[in-house]
Amino acid sequence: MNYQFSDKLANLKPSAIREIFKNLTDPSVISFGGGNPSPESFPVNELKILAADIFDNNSTAALQYNITEGYAPLRDLLKKRVKDKFDIGRDFDETIVVSGGQQGLELACKTFCNEGDVVLCEDPSFIGALNSFRSNGAKTVGVACDNDGIIPELLEERLKTVANVKMLYIIPTFQNPMGITTPIERRKRVYELCKQYGVMILEDNPYGELRFSGDDVPTIKSMDEEGIVIYCSSLSKILSPGMRIGYIVAPSEVTSKMVVAKQGEDVHTNIFFQMLCYKYMTECDLEAHIMKIREIYRKKSSLMLECLEKELPSEITFTRPCGGLFIWCTLPRGLDSADFIKGLSSRKVVAVPGATFLSNENGSSSSFRLNYSTPSDDDIRRGVKILGEYAKEYLANN
Amino acid sequence: MNYQFSDKLANLKPSAIREIFKNLTDPSVISFGGGNPSPESFPVNELKILAADIFDNNSTAALQYNITEGYAPLRDLLKKRVKDKFDIGRDFDETIVVSGGQQGLELACKTFCNEGDVVLCEDPSFIGALNSFRSNGAKTVGVACDNDGIIPELLEERLKTVANVKMLYIIPTFQNPMGITTPIERRKRVYELCKQYGVMILEDNPYGELRFSGDDVPTIKSMDEEGIVIYCSSLSKILSPGMRIGYIVAPSEVTSKMVVAKQGEDVHTNIFFQMLCYKYMTECDLEAHIMKIREIYRKKSSLMLECLEKELPSEITFTRPCGGLFIWCTLPRGLDSADFIKGLSSRKVVAVPGATFLSNENGSSSSFRLNYSTPSDDDIRRGVKILGEYAKEYLANN
Repeated sequence: MNYQFSDKLANLKPSAIREIFKNLTDPSVISFGGGNPSPESFPVNELKILAADIFDNNSTAALQYNITEGYAPLRDLLKKRVKDKFDIGRDFDETIVVSGGQQGLELACKTFCNEGDVVLCEDPSFIGALNSFRSNGAKTVGVACDNDGIIPELLEERLKTVANVKMLYIIPTFQNPMGITTPIERRKRVYELCKQYGVMILEDNPYGELRFSGDDVPTIKSMDEEGIVIYCSSLSKILSPGMRIGYIVAPSEVTSKMVVAKQGEDVHTNIFFQMLCYKYMTECDLEAHIMKIREIYRKKSSLMLECLEKELPSEITFTRPCGGLFIWCTLPRGLDSADFIKGLSSRKVVAVPGATFLSNENGSSSSFRLNYSTPSDDDIRRGVKILGEYAKEYLANN
Repeated sequence: MNYQFSDKLANLKPSAIREIFKNLTDPSVISFGGGNPSPESFPVNELKILAADIFDNNSTAALQYNITEGYAPLRDLLKKRVKDKFDIGRDFDETIVVSGGQQGLELACKTFCNEGDVVLCEDPSFIGALNSFRSNGAKTVGVACDNDGIIPELLEERLKTVANVKMLYIIPTFQNPMGITTPIERRKRVYELCKQYGVMILEDNPYGELRFSGDDVPTIKSMDEEGIVIYCSSLSKILSPGMRIGYIVAPSEVTSKMVVAKQGEDVHTNIFFQMLCYKYMTECDLEAHIMKIREIYRKKSSLMLECLEKELPSEITFTRPCGGLFIWCTLPRGLDSADFIKGLSSRKVVAVPGATFLSNENGSSSSFRLNYSTPSDDDIRRGVKILGEYAKEYLANN
């Protein structure tokens, strides 16, 4: 059969990272490739007790259809929490539950973009978001980043010259893949530019609560007096990603459109786990749990940075994140990281080449992404040692 | 702020039924409006025990990210089950897990339709599907149904005359909203016509296992030698809808595109509940459980039909389903059911006017849909009595 697929999906490739993840069946491989939270961070015992309680006392509601907007007590709680903690949300805003942050990004694109419209994004950026925009028929156009994030002058250049820009997609805090955080002045400038050019901002903040050093930087959403920011976050990195629970804070006029789109996608998010999250957040101490996770990642990132400093040839540079899950390494002399990473994988260490994260699907990059949250401490030590030895040989020969 | 929403969402209204459901907070209202499974049909105790077991023995996998295609043991089990029970699936087919049947329908549309392409559908049809197609930018064009389902001559007429038809959406078994089942001869004719005109068939079968009288009719997918049928079903009506677990059986070339689209929508379906379903299907007796549900619905439908025969004026006709969740009633003399149902709701009985289910959003209908699976037996008796009294008055005055 010669299938006539839609234009938007005909040539779209699955995420290289998810493909790497899928093929990681050899237990002797050390993977720095994923972006999974540490399994140590799952509050298994608490969730078990609370789940049994739901089956005992609220099973019908937990197994029946529910409303698309999300479980009302959870929405109220999330709304209050982000307001109290991060000053996110004005009177015109509404909070809805989505099936992981990923769905929030996708719904935002669907709500604003016709086929062929443009989403600007950091270059490099989260590949799962870029592919999601593409699978909705939007075009992704990159704006280069330095170690302080998106470069405002280049953003303005794009806003001036690119037609049909509907949205800027940005991960200002502990960015994926670079691990960097955009300072407050740039955030303000980004907000002003988007306001000036009438472009929505989709602020993705999956890692923001995983800070292990330095001070919080206010989110762009916290500056949003005009209602131009769609804020997307989730419980994936602070409770569990497998349950697929995320949330959106955006003007109610926008969330009501997103709800219509969500009805057509999955009717609503798994209601049992929405109730479970609500119970966890009211009956357990989420803030203490997050402190525990931060401590895990502080240790793991320190360990990886220490190993990188010791093992890597000094010509390879890398970012020093204050939170999140990733370190971004860059080869000298513009060497192509795809070739480098391919050779590394033959030594059973996996990382993700930077080109994977580019808005230009045919671009090349001399950088690569390392994850420290998933591997064990021992794997971090052994894996970076292998990486260092390999890198020395590689640089000597290339 | 004057938001510039995408064309596909700018004018799309939320599903009238979900809005009815959302507003059903007055406990004195008797609702025949929903389409919820009976809460009696949820195997709560079994699920509770199996869930605790997952927390004890497999918690990391159950809370971590997983692959987009779905939990492999569940996929294999679903694949074998539909093959053994319904002869669904050829060598070229693949089975994937989706977040409720709704996501399966949406992904199918996204995979085949560009903006402006046409999905043919039964008229009337499932509003959740129609809105999903519309929210993807597809146009819905109806094909009228009689009490044997879609009329093949009219389908052929559409296939001949409508441009850019990519897909036929059809619920041949216990159709929503009509409750009717399309006989085998028509199914064959529908398959042949779509084959001839190069149009994919999206066969939605959420209710197929809920037969309480008569014999099974083979699915259209079971005839699919050419790989033109995407079969969509779910565990919502036989285990629990709130968990949002559905599945697709379609040619692997098609499912691999759907998987790319699904990555962009929610990465994967709640993995804990995928594992829970697998455990239920292997450690408990799903088939016996389904027999129990059928018996519940056989009794509830018989009760409602009995009450309708007793209470309704004979000018109002209604379908007699052999399974599923719905009865379709039709007013005489082409009376508009929207007006009729509005008056009925002031007597605190809710049903859904037929126009809700039409492909033409501005169409009118003299029919309305009743659901018998959700209300208690007592509510069925009282609600139909109120309906009958109201209908006699209404017909006398209109």
